[in-house]
Amino acid sequence: MRIALDAMGTDNAPASEVAGAVSAVRADPGVQVVLVGDETALADSLSRHSRQNRITVVHAPDRIMASDAPTSALRRPRSSINVGLNLQKAGEADAFVSAGSTGAVMAASLVLLRPLRGVDRPPVATVFPTDHGLTLVADVGANIECKPGQLVEFARLGTIYMQDLQGLENPRVGLLNVGTESEKGTEVLQAAYRLLAGSDLNFVGNVEGGDILRHACDVAVCDGFTGNILLKFYESVAAFVVRKLAPGLRGNGLREEIQDRLRDLDYAEHGGAPLLGVNGVSVICHGKSSPRAIKAGIGVAARAVRSGLIAHMARDLAAAREGRL
Amino acid sequence: MRIALDAMGTDNAPASEVAGAVSAVRADPGVQVVLVGDETALADSLSRHSRQNRITVVHAPDRIMASDAPTSALRRPRSSINVGLNLQKAGEADAFVSAGSTGAVMAASLVLLRPLRGVDRPPVATVFPTDHGLTLVADVGANIECKPGQLVEFARLGTIYMQDLQGLENPRVGLLNVGTESEKGTEVLQAAYRLLAGSDLNFVGNVEGGDILRHACDVAVCDGFTGNILLKFYESVAAFVVRKLAPGLRGNGLREEIQDRLRDLDYAEHGGAPLLGVNGVSVICHGKSSPRAIKAGIGVAARAVRSGLIAHMARDLAAAREGRL
Repeated sequence: MRIALDAMGTDNAPASEVAGAVSAVRADPGVQVVLVGDETALADSLSRHSRQNRITVVHAPDRIMASDAPTSALRRPRSSINVGLNLQKAGEADAFVSAGSTGAVMAASLVLLRPLRGVDRPPVATVFPTDHGLTLVADVGANIECKPGQLVEFARLGTIYMQDLQGLENPRVGLLNVGTESEKGTEVLQAAYRLLAGSDLNFVGNVEGGDILRHACDVAVCDGFTGNILLKFYESVAAFVVRKLAPGLRGNGLREEIQDRLRDLDYAEHGGAPLLGVNGVSVICHGKSSPRAIKAGIGVAARAVRSGLIAHMARDLAAAREGRL
Repeated sequence: MRIALDAMGTDNAPASEVAGAVSAVRADPGVQVVLVGDETALADSLSRHSRQNRITVVHAPDRIMASDAPTSALRRPRSSINVGLNLQKAGEADAFVSAGSTGAVMAASLVLLRPLRGVDRPPVATVFPTDHGLTLVADVGANIECKPGQLVEFARLGTIYMQDLQGLENPRVGLLNVGTESEKGTEVLQAAYRLLAGSDLNFVGNVEGGDILRHACDVAVCDGFTGNILLKFYESVAAFVVRKLAPGLRGNGLREEIQDRLRDLDYAEHGGAPLLGVNGVSVICHGKSSPRAIKAGIGVAARAVRSGLIAHMARDLAAAREGRL
């Protein structure tokens, strides 16, 4: 399969992207990576690695910055985001991975790949490492305010994602709320609770902020505002803990040991955040992604393609629409 | 000063409360604690400690449980929450501290102490330990949905709290949001941004989820839904990290060392969460409070009384109302 990788996304582009692509093709013989970015910079960066037959380059000289408007990738046809997504649209790639501006990747994915039928507003989902496995949190930022039905969509898309990518048979869905009782939270959440309880999904009820790391559910559903605050907070925790623990532990290898153990808390290490519910695979990685995180993002995209995730979603959405679930 | 302590609040009541009260009066010669609870159980628990002249008992045989309705303390006059708050109302105590049901303490405090003039809906505030000091987050659960003006109230009350209890001259106020630009977030947040930017408060703009532990502001303002999710998530982090780090570190004292260093992440260790903007001091502690956490909660109440926090709030609210700020 061919995965188009935006090579102009990370703070350290294209070095991190190229190194991540090299690791990814070495690790998975079925993966080809199409690096999308400035060809001169890419040639330079590639020359530092041993030659890989399964890495090719498509030239896209224009780079979207985090400060650019979300619509900028659509207006700039030579941008790496636009070129990379169009490769998928044209059937020349099976997936797209980018560590560029989240807003720009989302907007361009929505317009170029289109939402699946039955999806109102695709959520961005990301996995949180917990005690006993991963919990997918959706939405983490695409939709600041949500209607009850959208939260149910997030639950359905997240369920299929965890089935196909994590091999869970019947993922437990929790609704992120301020208490476990059904009448807790806003009217939107109360209505979403009723819809989820009446659905075919494996709804385990409300979960609280403290339940996520206890792995009380496999899919935690929330609006993109709450999910975004929580995700960014979580990202900051590992570094904070290392700073708390490091003094006095220097010099005897313990600091590295602790950092290594806490690496699991870094969501970037688990790959990117897929935009769920578009007619294609679009995986958004953190702007600070290391080569390891880029490799993980490519791995997520590859698993999504191999598992037939998009067809599965389209099938289940149709069945839900027709009341067959 | 006299501090009424609900002795029926923690999961381990009244042992944790009695032990916390004993530590508190030993540590602070200006503090008297009135234990409010079942007098037989209290006599038994007190008999395990050396006699303290500055601890007295007021009998209240009825205990509100977490599963009881928030209004239950108001309907049950012999409950420890009702009796304790009425001691303050009658001038027989200067403050009230409880580790009982948050909802019940809030509801009873609102009705029995009354909001200060100019306060619409008092927030519960709690401090998050960060790299360089404490950040107060308000609201962490009293008001699930907020209007822009309420968020400004939270900012004002939080500012005065951090001035009086943490000795900050000009606390930096941040608005918790999904991006730093003024147009980020919901319409409520956009409007709150404008109000805060035009106020006399030291508003530093939007802060993101990852900015809190970086101590980007001293007072982080949000609705009680977001704050509650974040607080409970944060509470769960320290225990999670210890579980991640513990295996293999057992036996050589390191585990205890790590737990000790991460204790600072436990918000309960920093005392309870005051209900801000009522005409009195009401401090809510975690239901799992250790004696150390109860002692810290009593310490928060004592500092609030000594600093004249309530008079300061009333004064500034009046000045803001009259446009003198």
